[in-house]
Amino acid sequence: MEMTRKLKQPKSIKKRRYRKAGTPPGTLEYIGEKKAETIRITYLDYDEKDMVEKQVSKIEECFPFKSTPTVTWINIDGLHDIETIEKLGNQFDLHPLMLEDILHTEQRPKIEDFEKYIFIVLRMLTYNNETQAVESEQLSIVLGQNYVISFQERVGDVFDPIRERIRNAKGRIRKMGPDYLYYSLVDAIVDNYFTILEKVGEKIELMEEELVSEPTENILQQIHSMKREMISLRRSVWPLRELISGLQRSDSALIQESTGIYLRDVYDHTIQVIDTVESFRDMVSGMLDIYLSSISNKMNAVMKVLTIIATIFIPLTFIAGVYGMNFENMPELKLWWAYPLVWIVMIVVAAIMLVFFRRKKWL
Amino acid sequence: MEMTRKLKQPKSIKKRRYRKAGTPPGTLEYIGEKKAETIRITYLDYDEKDMVEKQVSKIEECFPFKSTPTVTWINIDGLHDIETIEKLGNQFDLHPLMLEDILHTEQRPKIEDFEKYIFIVLRMLTYNNETQAVESEQLSIVLGQNYVISFQERVGDVFDPIRERIRNAKGRIRKMGPDYLYYSLVDAIVDNYFTILEKVGEKIELMEEELVSEPTENILQQIHSMKREMISLRRSVWPLRELISGLQRSDSALIQESTGIYLRDVYDHTIQVIDTVESFRDMVSGMLDIYLSSISNKMNAVMKVLTIIATIFIPLTFIAGVYGMNFENMPELKLWWAYPLVWIVMIVVAAIMLVFFRRKKWL
Amino acid sequence: MEMTRKLKQPKSIKKRRYRKAGTPPGTLEYIGEKKAETIRITYLDYDEKDMVEKQVSKIEECFPFKSTPTVTWINIDGLHDIETIEKLGNQFDLHPLMLEDILHTEQRPKIEDFEKYIFIVLRMLTYNNETQAVESEQLSIVLGQNYVISFQERVGDVFDPIRERIRNAKGRIRKMGPDYLYYSLVDAIVDNYFTILEKVGEKIELMEEELVSEPTENILQQIHSMKREMISLRRSVWPLRELISGLQRSDSALIQESTGIYLRDVYDHTIQVIDTVESFRDMVSGMLDIYLSSISNKMNAVMKVLTIIATIFIPLTFIAGVYGMNFENMPELKLWWAYPLVWIVMIVVAAIMLVFFRRKKWL
Amino acid sequence: MEMTRKLKQPKSIKKRRYRKAGTPPGTLEYIGEKKAETIRITYLDYDEKDMVEKQVSKIEECFPFKSTPTVTWINIDGLHDIETIEKLGNQFDLHPLMLEDILHTEQRPKIEDFEKYIFIVLRMLTYNNETQAVESEQLSIVLGQNYVISFQERVGDVFDPIRERIRNAKGRIRKMGPDYLYYSLVDAIVDNYFTILEKVGEKIELMEEELVSEPTENILQQIHSMKREMISLRRSVWPLRELISGLQRSDSALIQESTGIYLRDVYDHTIQVIDTVESFRDMVSGMLDIYLSSISNKMNAVMKVLTIIATIFIPLTFIAGVYGMNFENMPELKLWWAYPLVWIVMIVVAAIMLVFFRRKKWL
Amino acid sequence: MEMTRKLKQPKSIKKRRYRKAGTPPGTLEYIGEKKAETIRITYLDYDEKDMVEKQVSKIEECFPFKSTPTVTWINIDGLHDIETIEKLGNQFDLHPLMLEDILHTEQRPKIEDFEKYIFIVLRMLTYNNETQAVESEQLSIVLGQNYVISFQERVGDVFDPIRERIRNAKGRIRKMGPDYLYYSLVDAIVDNYFTILEKVGEKIELMEEELVSEPTENILQQIHSMKREMISLRRSVWPLRELISGLQRSDSALIQESTGIYLRDVYDHTIQVIDTVESFRDMVSGMLDIYLSSISNKMNAVMKVLTIIATIFIPLTFIAGVYGMNFENMPELKLWWAYPLVWIVMIVVAAIMLVFFRRKKWL
Repeated sequence: MEMTRKLKQPKSIKKRRYRKAGTPPGTLEYIGEKKAETIRITYLDYDEKDMVEKQVSKIEECFPFKSTPTVTWINIDGLHDIETIEKLGNQFDLHPLMLEDILHTEQRPKIEDFEKYIFIVLRMLTYNNETQAVESEQLSIVLGQNYVISFQERVGDVFDPIRERIRNAKGRIRKMGPDYLYYSLVDAIVDNYFTILEKVGEKIELMEEELVSEPTENILQQIHSMKREMISLRRSVWPLRELISGLQRSDSALIQESTGIYLRDVYDHTIQVIDTVESFRDMVSGMLDIYLSSISNKMNAVMKVLTIIATIFIPLTFIAGVYGMNFENMPELKLWWAYPLVWIVMIVVAAIMLVFFRRKKWL
Repeated sequence: MEMTRKLKQPKSIKKRRYRKAGTPPGTLEYIGEKKAETIRITYLDYDEKDMVEKQVSKIEECFPFKSTPTVTWINIDGLHDIETIEKLGNQFDLHPLMLEDILHTEQRPKIEDFEKYIFIVLRMLTYNNETQAVESEQLSIVLGQNYVISFQERVGDVFDPIRERIRNAKGRIRKMGPDYLYYSLVDAIVDNYFTILEKVGEKIELMEEELVSEPTENILQQIHSMKREMISLRRSVWPLRELISGLQRSDSALIQESTGIYLRDVYDHTIQVIDTVESFRDMVSGMLDIYLSSISNKMNAVMKVLTIIATIFIPLTFIAGVYGMNFENMPELKLWWAYPLVWIVMIVVAAIMLVFFRRKKWL
Repeated sequence: MEMTRKLKQPKSIKKRRYRKAGTPPGTLEYIGEKKAETIRITYLDYDEKDMVEKQVSKIEECFPFKSTPTVTWINIDGLHDIETIEKLGNQFDLHPLMLEDILHTEQRPKIEDFEKYIFIVLRMLTYNNETQAVESEQLSIVLGQNYVISFQERVGDVFDPIRERIRNAKGRIRKMGPDYLYYSLVDAIVDNYFTILEKVGEKIELMEEELVSEPTENILQQIHSMKREMISLRRSVWPLRELISGLQRSDSALIQESTGIYLRDVYDHTIQVIDTVESFRDMVSGMLDIYLSSISNKMNAVMKVLTIIATIFIPLTFIAGVYGMNFENMPELKLWWAYPLVWIVMIVVAAIMLVFFRRKKWL
Repeated sequence: MEMTRKLKQPKSIKKRRYRKAGTPPGTLEYIGEKKAETIRITYLDYDEKDMVEKQVSKIEECFPFKSTPTVTWINIDGLHDIETIEKLGNQFDLHPLMLEDILHTEQRPKIEDFEKYIFIVLRMLTYNNETQAVESEQLSIVLGQNYVISFQERVGDVFDPIRERIRNAKGRIRKMGPDYLYYSLVDAIVDNYFTILEKVGEKIELMEEELVSEPTENILQQIHSMKREMISLRRSVWPLRELISGLQRSDSALIQESTGIYLRDVYDHTIQVIDTVESFRDMVSGMLDIYLSSISNKMNAVMKVLTIIATIFIPLTFIAGVYGMNFENMPELKLWWAYPLVWIVMIVVAAIMLVFFRRKKWL
Repeated sequence: MEMTRKLKQPKSIKKRRYRKAGTPPGTLEYIGEKKAETIRITYLDYDEKDMVEKQVSKIEECFPFKSTPTVTWINIDGLHDIETIEKLGNQFDLHPLMLEDILHTEQRPKIEDFEKYIFIVLRMLTYNNETQAVESEQLSIVLGQNYVISFQERVGDVFDPIRERIRNAKGRIRKMGPDYLYYSLVDAIVDNYFTILEKVGEKIELMEEELVSEPTENILQQIHSMKREMISLRRSVWPLRELISGLQRSDSALIQESTGIYLRDVYDHTIQVIDTVESFRDMVSGMLDIYLSSISNKMNAVMKVLTIIATIFIPLTFIAGVYGMNFENMPELKLWWAYPLVWIVMIVVAAIMLVFFRRKKWL
């Protein structure tokens, strides 16, 4: 099974690195964990009537599609084979700086319009049920005249329903151009965020229930790690807003006017995702407050018990101590009613204190 | 009685879902709790002279009104009958993405101008007196050339006074076009927010009184749940501002200039609602501070009592202990005035401590 | 004496209501406490040469002034006589929505430009020396071609110096148009805010002195109520900024260019008022911090005394307890120097502890 | 020695007053402490070749300079002689509202462009080494066609180096117009802020050292007063940014294009001053956090000592107490090895506890 | 070894000074620590074919390059030799205010466009492995028609890879103009920030691990110093965003259009750096929360042990005390089963308490 980077782990800090200072810009070098053994290249070529889907072993097989009028979607899983990506870049006239961005897998989501093609980078999230952590990988998508090229860090994505729709000519996707495919990919990513957020929401709920029923020290650790997960989520999600509104406002010839309404729809979903992330953040912050004050309450309860026991028995013990002294001249000791009287005094003292505590609402 | 979603319940997190990732955009599917058994379709058709009101069983009965010059208000309660909504959409040329938004009942309030009609989504709030929680349902309203179509999740709304005004030709509503009806619906929603806020305000006040008179652990839970209710309210109310100012600025031919002043009025009310929600938030935050420091004060009081009792009696008990020792050579024990002297010493020690405590203002 | 609404009282929350949901817009209904028995109508009509001031019993007496070239200031104290206000509205062509705003006395300060007249709503503050609370009432002012109409909730305002200036032709007010009168009224309101803030400042100072000299639980309540007063003040003051800059930027024919510089002056004052309110808020927040840490310090002091007394005497009491045991075989008990030695041991133990505490700076 | 207003003192709140509500705008009245006995008028008249400097007793002596082609700098120290200022105002055509601003010494820094002259108000700071507080006075500067007039609250300012440069024709000041003089004055004020901030920075450092080495209750008071000083500093400094960028953007004929680059320089310095003030604020806030947690740590340490001593000796004392009982039937008392055994038991119990505490890292 | 300024040390506050108030603008004076003994001047002159690199002893040797068509990079390490800088300034027509900025080494990063050249100031960071602190020095770069001049505080920088690329004609640098060199320097600086951030990230991680495993008082100090380091980093990094976007938007003839895409790339990196710094800030804040609540938890644990021991033994000790009294009339003392009974009573009391504590989850 492939190794995945966990968003919530402190280790990830060290990884946030970039091209070695001073290397010329556009130097291609893969920065990130190697998440796959071999790279996998597939293409999907379609128009309204026909559809061809194929996994190829050499990138050169995809080159002819550059000039065919059909829509072609080339997908590359695995980024460590720099040579392949370089060849592809040369063939499709992709800018070296853009190829660099594709290979450096800690990019902030962004859009760049190179006139001949539009380039976006965003993060694809997956929820690891085992570690209960959100994992992320970088997805870069290039939209050209009649092609879409997507770069993923590893095999496995959220695009299977789209492939299904292309294969079965379901919905309008086969009738539309590459910009609609482009939109569909972004839409699938954003829709997937809802699934992730649902899972995160369930986790938050579980934590809340635990917090209310039995606040342990362990939960503090969990709240903290949840907070960091929220920071990571935010970093993936916030720039998306700008990105999609950039796509919307772009007057690029590559995006047809009819796609505008679909982009508006994705934009609304993005806002909703951001809203939900913000709500979650508020909830997690609120949990910390609750935790701290429940700790405080507990301590209060402990103190009260100590105080009640101590304040009742300390004076009584003193009285007992007095009549345990060995002075020769202690006339009380000889009186037959002195011992019962001491008992009565002690009971009265204790009773007065209990009344006092009850009045103070400590009992 | 129908089940309603409670804003304040953690359960609601799980529900914040969206169309399954990857289904083609515009796929109609009802997302939300089924809040009504059957859907109910009513229409109100009027001009300055006549008025017809009817509940119909088939949506097709409403179709002729699309082209009549009278103003028609079609209202649909219950969203789970997708077929009906699809037929309506086809007849009135409504965009599939818009129909999708109507059916997905966790939309953020928003406005969309489709030229031929204007579409808004907002949240209608109700206060459940039993659970003392604010509940919400989604309301979608479409304004066309000479019709208004409203979609509600369930029967029961805040529009009865408007219906009454139409029936009795009260106010100017019968003389005005569909845009005035549109405005009236939004206005009724916003006015209803004031009613809800009044109830929430009363609840906050009750909590404050309880907090001051007797801060229990229970109130912390209440403050927290109130905080979440505020987050929910904010989410319903904030986007409204943008929505209404969008309506105002819209240069759509569907909105007559004379309606502008009314929209400005609703806008002012929305600002006031937002202001009030923000004030409530501040108050609830302040309550947490008060709660925490009253806890702290209580603990202080407890500690003081413990300290006073302990510090007075611990030294006295020590003195008593000394003269309880069984050494043979303890000449004091034989002196007749030793026992009274010990009493005097103990009383003096206690008195000095009491004076010290009083000087420190602990008593 | 008339009843006044206290800004700081929780009761005010309930009052923040609006027209009943669903009544047609422009329905006139007085919303607010009835603060005066009868309404009082006065007018002041003047030009550079002459001046007439009169209290009238019927609003109709003011109607002729609509068309005279002199400047007329009509002032109405008390808003519950809806009929009067309606008549006035009809005569002066005032918009029903505006009349509604005048009667609903919980408006947020705002400006509306109706071309033929400019309408502003703001809050007039008074400091109630008895309750030491800031009270507020709504003031609505209409500026027309050659008249100014002001609506107050009750008799008594901050405009007497302006009346005096008109009567005695002091300053330039008699030579200027109604826009200068308009400015003068707003200016008087803002200047009055400084007086109020001075009073509030004195109260804050008193609280600070009390906080430093003797922090009681009572002061927490005061800080909290001060915080709410600040929230209220902010709500009255912040919108003013926008309002006055709206007046400034307005290209209405009703405001002469020469008045611009005066408006800039009021604007500066408003900024200063806002600045001061913000400073006060910071101070009040700082007071809470101080209070909490002084509580914490006090608790620390209490704990230290307890610890010192307890840790010194507990071991000593143990030693005494040991030699209070009744074992037959306790050879120490028979040694003549054992008792003095025990005393020496006890003194040494106590001394070591005192040194330890002193080193720890607990003494 | 003259009395100065201390920024950090609560008293200053009361002083933040303004013209009496209702007096006509432009009424000249000095609002502020009288900081000087007599007013002092000096002028400096220069061009590239000649320079005249003189202290005059009557303001009328400065009037001729209004129309000479040389650059004239009139400086007035002391603002309580209203008559003088009024005369000057009349002669130089200064607007009454501006004169009012000069006299009301609690102005927020601002700029006003009256076409014929530009008016700015700002605060000149001085550091009182005795009270270790930052003091401030209001400085108003008017830039006219060929003159600069400056108004100060009292004798003594930061302009001596500028005077020196004029006298000795050092730098380019004698070759430039009044706008360069104007810039030089503002520049001197801003440069002086750095000196003040250095002093404040040293004070903060001293506090930090004290805080780390020995946090006393006194330091809390100091942190609080430092916080207020920061609020005051911010109020003096923030508006400056807007003021200078106002000067920069102004297309007034009074400011020559060549001065623009100098203004940009002052602007950069202002940003740097603001940055430093913000850093200081962060530091002071951080100090409060440190203080509070060091208090908390101290309490913890105290509690641990109490707990260790108490938990070790309380059980031992109980054991001793048991064998201090006077029951006749206590066979243990007669066994010769019972007493040593009790000692062993007690030592073992104490040892177990010490091990437990060490494991818990409390020792 | 040369002395370096530590960002995190309070001492740095004192150093934030500026030109002495009142000296004429443009006065050259070195403000900062003298970080190098002698200044070092080197130049690199190149075009596509040739390359000359030389260290010179007199600045005059660089003067001829002003008019040659080749690209010349003059680098000066050490700023205290004012004469040299003045000569250079005269020769290259550099503005005195700009020279002043170069010498005052506490500038905020900024850009200034003097038409004939573009000037930027930024901070070069280095990580001192010994003190584990981030150190910074000021770097000023001037871009002219065919030259770039850089000013550093001391020998040693992050530009060696760039020099290598020029020497070996690696990448496109030898084919491009001075603007590309300019970009390369800025790019190297920003790339170096990632290296620094990686180191800081590792440090934060170490602190987090320590915090979780064993929170000592020492870590509080570390968190605080880390917080200050973050403030410093932010001050270096935030203005960079504006600076680079200023370069991007600049329509200066000195920057060719083809360089635009590279600047966009640096801009993206800057945003990423800022993002990372903000994340670090959030993490450090979170650490403080964790620290405080772990302190609180620890105290709670201590209190619980105290309470359990004390509440169990205090009543038992009381019972023992009672039967240690010496009254003559205490019939229980004579009963043979009284002593075992007392033991049973004591054990039962202790057991009840243990059950109570377990139910309360204190054990």
